Amino acid sequence: MIQKLIEKIQKTKAPICVGLDPMLGYIPKQITEKAYAEYGETLEGAAEAVWQFNKEIVDHTFDLIPAVKPQIAMYEQFGIPGLTAYKRTVDYCRGKGLIVIGDAKRGDIGSTSAAYAAAHLGHVQVGSRSLAGFDTDFLTVNPYLGTDGVKPFVDVCQAEDKGIFVLVKTSNPSSGEFQDKTIDGRPLYELVAGKVVEWGALSMDGAYSNVGAVVGATYPEMSRILRKQMPHTYFLVPGYGAQGGTAEDLRYCFNEDGLGAIVNSSRGIIAAYKKDPYAEFGPERFGEASRQAVIDMAADIGRVL
Amino acid sequence: MIQKLIEKIQKTKAPICVGLDPMLGYIPKQITEKAYAEYGETLEGAAEAVWQFNKEIVDHTFDLIPAVKPQIAMYEQFGIPGLTAYKRTVDYCRGKGLIVIGDAKRGDIGSTSAAYAAAHLGHVQVGSRSLAGFDTDFLTVNPYLGTDGVKPFVDVCQAEDKGIFVLVKTSNPSSGEFQDKTIDGRPLYELVAGKVVEWGALSMDGAYSNVGAVVGATYPEMSRILRKQMPHTYFLVPGYGAQGGTAEDLRYCFNEDGLGAIVNSSRGIIAAYKKDPYAEFGPERFGEASRQAVIDMAADIGRVL
Repeated sequence: MIQKLIEKIQKTKAPICVGLDPMLGYIPKQITEKAYAEYGETLEGAAEAVWQFNKEIVDHTFDLIPAVKPQIAMYEQFGIPGLTAYKRTVDYCRGKGLIVIGDAKRGDIGSTSAAYAAAHLGHVQVGSRSLAGFDTDFLTVNPYLGTDGVKPFVDVCQAEDKGIFVLVKTSNPSSGEFQDKTIDGRPLYELVAGKVVEWGALSMDGAYSNVGAVVGATYPEMSRILRKQMPHTYFLVPGYGAQGGTAEDLRYCFNEDGLGAIVNSSRGIIAAYKKDPYAEFGPERFGEASRQAVIDMAADIGRVL
Repeated sequence: MIQKLIEKIQKTKAPICVGLDPMLGYIPKQITEKAYAEYGETLEGAAEAVWQFNKEIVDHTFDLIPAVKPQIAMYEQFGIPGLTAYKRTVDYCRGKGLIVIGDAKRGDIGSTSAAYAAAHLGHVQVGSRSLAGFDTDFLTVNPYLGTDGVKPFVDVCQAEDKGIFVLVKTSNPSSGEFQDKTIDGRPLYELVAGKVVEWGALSMDGAYSNVGAVVGATYPEMSRILRKQMPHTYFLVPGYGAQGGTAEDLRYCFNEDGLGAIVNSSRGIIAAYKKDPYAEFGPERFGEASRQAVIDMAADIGRVL
């Protein structure tokens, strides 16, 4: 699966992933009002607004980008209707030829991780039939429970040509609270990185592994070290833009071949119309604003590669 | 919320939680066959079987126990129909007066954790209305991202009288891979425990906090230390029974007041009819087997308290 992602990145010349994290506050009024008129101010109404918003953004950007990353929490908050909008978004994006990275940060004891892996990447056996729950291409995974909590995801990557990104060094302000703590002279995130390399060896796909790592753009010195420690690991890099990461900060996430990282932007793309450089588009043309923001982000990152 | 749980534990004299983790392999054929006959070998068919299985177990045990803990992964693997069965189970259990601990191990950056907290414990604002997605009483939370990833859950606990259990020392074989690593002379799980105590101080409810900890039954020496380090923290204790934890191992999870822990059993209860001591019930009377297994588990734990 990582090869498919690399091919899409090379074709679009954009190591970019659009974070489909539709907070209601980002959605223009013409969409929410229409959805509420049809479904009421209900979970169904919110889910319909989310779906219409996503569709418009995908329709305006799918030809420019290799992948999208819907954050499942933003759908889960609207209960079953919200998760139905998540599934609809996943299916629509895959239909448009996009690679879908489900940002779910799942992780549990072995048998439970196996169920999550089946839910999001693989299949579940029901009687004589093998069925898919959500069927995304990649999933983000939390490593706190150790190897037996991650291995079931790796097994599904290998069996079904899918991929994962394991949290190594996250982009948020307090990520250092545990992740940076020193163990035998090295920070915990390097210990996790070492394990990701081990797990990754179990599902190689060309020069890179189907087992990637989440490495935040907001800690460039750390990404430099991790890049060297994990030469065959693809990085999913959150934190660019709204969270404070700049293109300069991203330089070290890439290998010398120009590969090795895909950079996510959520708010910066999907709520671009609310930001100064794109205000001219206005809420009515938010899809076009998102398209322009993608073009600008690709150019910004291209500058440092 | 922790006071409500304590009252229920005192009333039932059973510090027990039934893990509603319905693997299809646990469900007797008369239930799956009926469900597949009605809905086909589909996600809907599997979800119907899960729901009918849960309902029978809850109907046979609700008067003996304070709480249930559905593991959401076991539902998520069946996609939207599975999650609909999860919600139905949560609502049914709450209707029966049970406290519901959603075992979801969510955790992310701040804004995303806020969405998960709204999804499972709180409410989401849709236009002028405040709506609940899943509305469980407690949720399990993963701490790998640090304070800003946990705080949104604590805020909802405090605002809406709900509770969380934060992963401290998990019950699985490789939990020590990261959790036991030494930082400044103490294992990571003690560092996490210290933070749980800090977070817990922000939402006290009587002598205990609404912010609890997950502490596996399979590591009794560690639970002894954690019990002392966290006197006002309730423990959710997985790993009893099928995973190998014994009643003796649980002794140290409790405070001298006999409170401080609630012990989960999943397979040992819901698939009791498959085990030797309960084989006489057979698949037809699996609900009665589960009831007897609950009675025996309460007696087993009562012995060491």
